[in-house]
Amino acid sequence: MNDIITQVAVTGGTHGNESTGVYLVKHWQSHPEEVKRDSFATELHLTNPAAIKTMRRYIDQDLNRQFNLKDLQNPALQGSEQQQAKMINEQLGPKENPRVDFVIDMHTTTANMGMTVVFNSDHPLVIGTAFYIKQKMPDAHLFFQPSDRLEDNFLRSMGRYGGLVIEVGPIPQGLLRHQVSADTHRAVMHALDYLEQYNQGHKPEIPAETTGYRFIEKIPFPVDEHGEIAGMIHPDLQDRDYQPIAPGDPLFITLAGETITYQGEQTVYGAFINEAAYYDRKIGLSLMEKVRIAYPHSKGNDLS
Amino acid sequence: MNDIITQVAVTGGTHGNESTGVYLVKHWQSHPEEVKRDSFATELHLTNPAAIKTMRRYIDQDLNRQFNLKDLQNPALQGSEQQQAKMINEQLGPKENPRVDFVIDMHTTTANMGMTVVFNSDHPLVIGTAFYIKQKMPDAHLFFQPSDRLEDNFLRSMGRYGGLVIEVGPIPQGLLRHQVSADTHRAVMHALDYLEQYNQGHKPEIPAETTGYRFIEKIPFPVDEHGEIAGMIHPDLQDRDYQPIAPGDPLFITLAGETITYQGEQTVYGAFINEAAYYDRKIGLSLMEKVRIAYPHSKGNDLS
Repeated sequence: MNDIITQVAVTGGTHGNESTGVYLVKHWQSHPEEVKRDSFATELHLTNPAAIKTMRRYIDQDLNRQFNLKDLQNPALQGSEQQQAKMINEQLGPKENPRVDFVIDMHTTTANMGMTVVFNSDHPLVIGTAFYIKQKMPDAHLFFQPSDRLEDNFLRSMGRYGGLVIEVGPIPQGLLRHQVSADTHRAVMHALDYLEQYNQGHKPEIPAETTGYRFIEKIPFPVDEHGEIAGMIHPDLQDRDYQPIAPGDPLFITLAGETITYQGEQTVYGAFINEAAYYDRKIGLSLMEKVRIAYPHSKGNDLS
Repeated sequence: MNDIITQVAVTGGTHGNESTGVYLVKHWQSHPEEVKRDSFATELHLTNPAAIKTMRRYIDQDLNRQFNLKDLQNPALQGSEQQQAKMINEQLGPKENPRVDFVIDMHTTTANMGMTVVFNSDHPLVIGTAFYIKQKMPDAHLFFQPSDRLEDNFLRSMGRYGGLVIEVGPIPQGLLRHQVSADTHRAVMHALDYLEQYNQGHKPEIPAETTGYRFIEKIPFPVDEHGEIAGMIHPDLQDRDYQPIAPGDPLFITLAGETITYQGEQTVYGAFINEAAYYDRKIGLSLMEKVRIAYPHSKGNDLS
């Protein structure tokens, strides 16, 4: 089973104002030995150069929502990021039968989410890599959102076996912090190490299952009669990503001091709390549920 | 001397991605009683609507560098913010003889600067307001940079007696945090209260002098041979705005772990450490010196 993975893409700048990934891609372009492994080739991509140049998340559309197969094949979609996604599909894909085997896409968040590995494939290679990162970085959170690779519209879905988003925060958009860069660097090294060992036939011992999170719903900010945001994340919730939110717990506070509480019936967990990128859609946070994620031992040939 | 100040402008969104001021202006537009005072009129302005709409600092140029009298009078300057500054000059000015007496301009920073009041006029009304805010909010820092009002290119200089920048952080661009909004709200209330009491002839007791900071120089990030940023703020310096930086203290660190130290000969103080808005000019931080700021008791008629 050696050398079945031949091409790994490490990508940054999918969102142009998430500078950590941009910095790391440029760093590795000057220090390719850090991402080199014996059993596969690692390629580096700055995936949204126009957005990086203007230090914006995107020019016309969020690039990281353009990789659904139908959208890639739809010639009517000609926005800046829609064209860019088609170009990336030529470079890394085609999506139906990609040249690249695995994608590691580096992101940051303004939310206090620490190290989060976001993945949506139940392929053993993807789950194994995520589990390995968590084994090496025990504070990492796994955010597992199963979906079909061809329907997934994230860049990570451009790998033959899927891929991962490495999402680190809190960090403002448009700047670098040493710890965030160092953590992201470390997570990418672990991912490449896992793929290398897997490829060479001596897959590391990883747990049979672990705890993760699954998305439930997005919670909008309160708005006034003009549709303007009329409340902020409550101080008791701010920076408490992945902590439990029970019915009646505060979600938002208005400047006048009025508290708006969680009206659900179950204890849930917050994530992407006060993420700047979601203000355009007036989203205050995401709610998650805790789940057990199992490594899919049952499959015979992992790379089938 | 009653009612000599008749118009106070409270402004937000001079930088379109510093959302706190935008939020507060909109809040006060719905709750005008909070900014109403008996002895003067308070007017509210969102000063860069195009930048606010696209959640960017600016469209073409930094609006908060366009209010130099010569630039306002230069018809060749036709960028988006240069035109906007001329329109504001018509609304609040003209700068040589402004309609508005005092400007309170609300800003935020990604740096850990807490509450900072930035002013450049030694007019007793300006210094008194700044001292009063510090008296009420003792953790506030005063950043005093004397310059001629007509030459000052900041929006605050559009007031007949000058004005203040209220600068609060740390907060990422493009989002709201309750504490930052509440602190900014409080500082503006104190400023209006001071002007009100001053106007009505019973000026509050304030110290004869206090400690502040004065700008020395901007320190660029280290760059590589391609001019790319090659280091980050050192973890020992990150978030330590207004703390002493002695010769030999760490300023930057590269991803490879190399530390770059301060080479000056005097102990200085950092401010705007890792401010996102300064990355386009590759500025890592500002150096400040501590100064004593005296209230100008000597002048007879404060409003002369």
